[in-house]
Amino acid sequence: MSEVYAVRRGLLRDRCAAVGSAAALVSRPANVRYLAGGAPPGSVLLLGPGGDVLLTPRAPSGDPADGRTDEQLRLSLLPGSDGDPVVAAADLAASSGAESLAVEEHHLTVSRHRAMGSVAPRLRLADLGATVEQLRVVKDEEEIACLRIAAEITDQALGELLESILVGRTERHLALELERRLVDHGADGPAFATSVATGPNSGQGRHRPSDRRVEEGDFLSVCLGANYRGYRCEIGRTFVIGTTPADWQIELYDLVFAAQRAGREALVPGAAYRDVDRAARYLLDSAGHGGGLAPWTGHGVGLEIDEDPQLAPAAMGKLDACVPVTVEPGVHLPGRGGVRIDDTLVVRPEADGGPELLTITTKELLAL
Amino acid sequence: MSEVYAVRRGLLRDRCAAVGSAAALVSRPANVRYLAGGAPPGSVLLLGPGGDVLLTPRAPSGDPADGRTDEQLRLSLLPGSDGDPVVAAADLAASSGAESLAVEEHHLTVSRHRAMGSVAPRLRLADLGATVEQLRVVKDEEEIACLRIAAEITDQALGELLESILVGRTERHLALELERRLVDHGADGPAFATSVATGPNSGQGRHRPSDRRVEEGDFLSVCLGANYRGYRCEIGRTFVIGTTPADWQIELYDLVFAAQRAGREALVPGAAYRDVDRAARYLLDSAGHGGGLAPWTGHGVGLEIDEDPQLAPAAMGKLDACVPVTVEPGVHLPGRGGVRIDDTLVVRPEADGGPELLTITTKELLAL
Repeated sequence: MSEVYAVRRGLLRDRCAAVGSAAALVSRPANVRYLAGGAPPGSVLLLGPGGDVLLTPRAPSGDPADGRTDEQLRLSLLPGSDGDPVVAAADLAASSGAESLAVEEHHLTVSRHRAMGSVAPRLRLADLGATVEQLRVVKDEEEIACLRIAAEITDQALGELLESILVGRTERHLALELERRLVDHGADGPAFATSVATGPNSGQGRHRPSDRRVEEGDFLSVCLGANYRGYRCEIGRTFVIGTTPADWQIELYDLVFAAQRAGREALVPGAAYRDVDRAARYLLDSAGHGGGLAPWTGHGVGLEIDEDPQLAPAAMGKLDACVPVTVEPGVHLPGRGGVRIDDTLVVRPEADGGPELLTITTKELLAL
Repeated sequence: MSEVYAVRRGLLRDRCAAVGSAAALVSRPANVRYLAGGAPPGSVLLLGPGGDVLLTPRAPSGDPADGRTDEQLRLSLLPGSDGDPVVAAADLAASSGAESLAVEEHHLTVSRHRAMGSVAPRLRLADLGATVEQLRVVKDEEEIACLRIAAEITDQALGELLESILVGRTERHLALELERRLVDHGADGPAFATSVATGPNSGQGRHRPSDRRVEEGDFLSVCLGANYRGYRCEIGRTFVIGTTPADWQIELYDLVFAAQRAGREALVPGAAYRDVDRAARYLLDSAGHGGGLAPWTGHGVGLEIDEDPQLAPAAMGKLDACVPVTVEPGVHLPGRGGVRIDDTLVVRPEADGGPELLTITTKELLAL
């Protein structure tokens, strides 16, 4: 198991060496976890001439998932909470002979960066950029297995909700109940703040649950996901409350369903990110809903719920196999509500059966 | 209502002017909310020569608490999600004639800071430091009223839990139930991740709830708090499960109780932060528990759960009236468990009756 992390760190060292930096400091928590197998709060990972060191401001917490780290790592506990591990890392890198250190400028604050410069004035601080995020885009089968379990848990939690009485309950309560059910089924927690949107709120991307109660005739849209061993998936569904959906509801649902299917079908290795986005966006645009659409129609998932790639009109790049992404177009009509349909899928070659759908809850328009 | 925010922004402008900066950019979300009355996701606040502008990458969400902003502010929506509001703010500050702009270097990343420099190369970027955090330390009565309600909600949620059957339930479930009860009683959500620790886990500061079940004879320590209109409080209590506590449990409880009381009694205007810490720490140190103690014994609360001041051995500064803080010493004996007792109080002059205890749940050692 720990070999996986050592291999990942080896890849990062290679990339750094290729741009002339023999040492790198990783501070973004998901990146630290990816490379070390665990990320105690505040810890940072130094890949330096003296080996790989995880510097942490205090002892790892009792949580095995966060505290577990690769045995091949040295673990360095800084005394007290005053010492900033990035400053200690700069000091350590300089004293072990590094001339330059690549840091995550998109994560480090200006203050911390300056403090590193003060403690190690002769160390040249370079930019590591999104190198680790790029390594994280393509998942191995063990990572995908975690996402698959996260999706199973999510489907179970959602399925149970659908069997309960919904009318009269508030968005907030339904969201809390979904989160409880995620944990019941083995999640470490929700992957992100569960969204439940009713009536005029429905169809909005990340609507924060309010005290509005579910009413007959409402659209109800939910978006939730489990965090399983750090891996996060996402599902979004829209239902109708009551026996018969109105005509406008059926029409809007069919439109978003067709758009989402088009997006899913565009998930093939080699497809440009922007072409997947266009596939999901095209039908909605043509039907006159282009103005209100979210700026993206999907995104990568993994150790974070919102990772590269972004499926958006201006995104650069092409899909690889084994990249898990969401496809989540939605339309919201102000004052009336709307529809969002959201799946997590893994890009697979056609020879392997095409995209692997992780979130398998039905996408029929259910009347609850 | 909106006048409060304009007054706060006036104070900030004065402080900036005093250090020679006519323009300031606030990016830390709690600081934006404090000054604007609301902080849509990703928004930043520019106080510039051209007036006060809230720049936000997308329309405010449906949540009134987050979307509500001062009418005296101009609201500027940036098209799409690509534009970084801090870059747009730098551009705007430069084009409205500012020569320098004070930014929150402890919040801005190196990458964003550099992007600001690129778009406005002649604008001198200075450091605003923790100026807004310092303004936030002393609360007005309206803020304290929100904290008082948050504490009432928290006491209610905890009180209900104590009336239910606990043996056999997992830490995770108890934590989720507490969070549901917080929302039931009107919280916008939990102020932080609720901690429930049983048996050998008990007494640890921010233990993450596990699947361990409550057993007869356990210590059970909980730490929770409500978020009410953005204001966050904290309570921590330790109980014994079963009819009769063991001698070591009573002894440890009495010790921590005495330490916490000493800390509470030290909360007077003008007291040095470190002296409050020492008051709470002294008895625990003397009893030989000094080694395992957390590096602080309390901290400020408000729009964030962990604010200035920090009550710690090396903290500099003195308490003012109307500063809400926690007092939360605890002892954890590895393998056996421990005790933490945590209250939120507001510092008040003795003439006004001394510290105002917001979290009023009993601190007797209850056997549940």
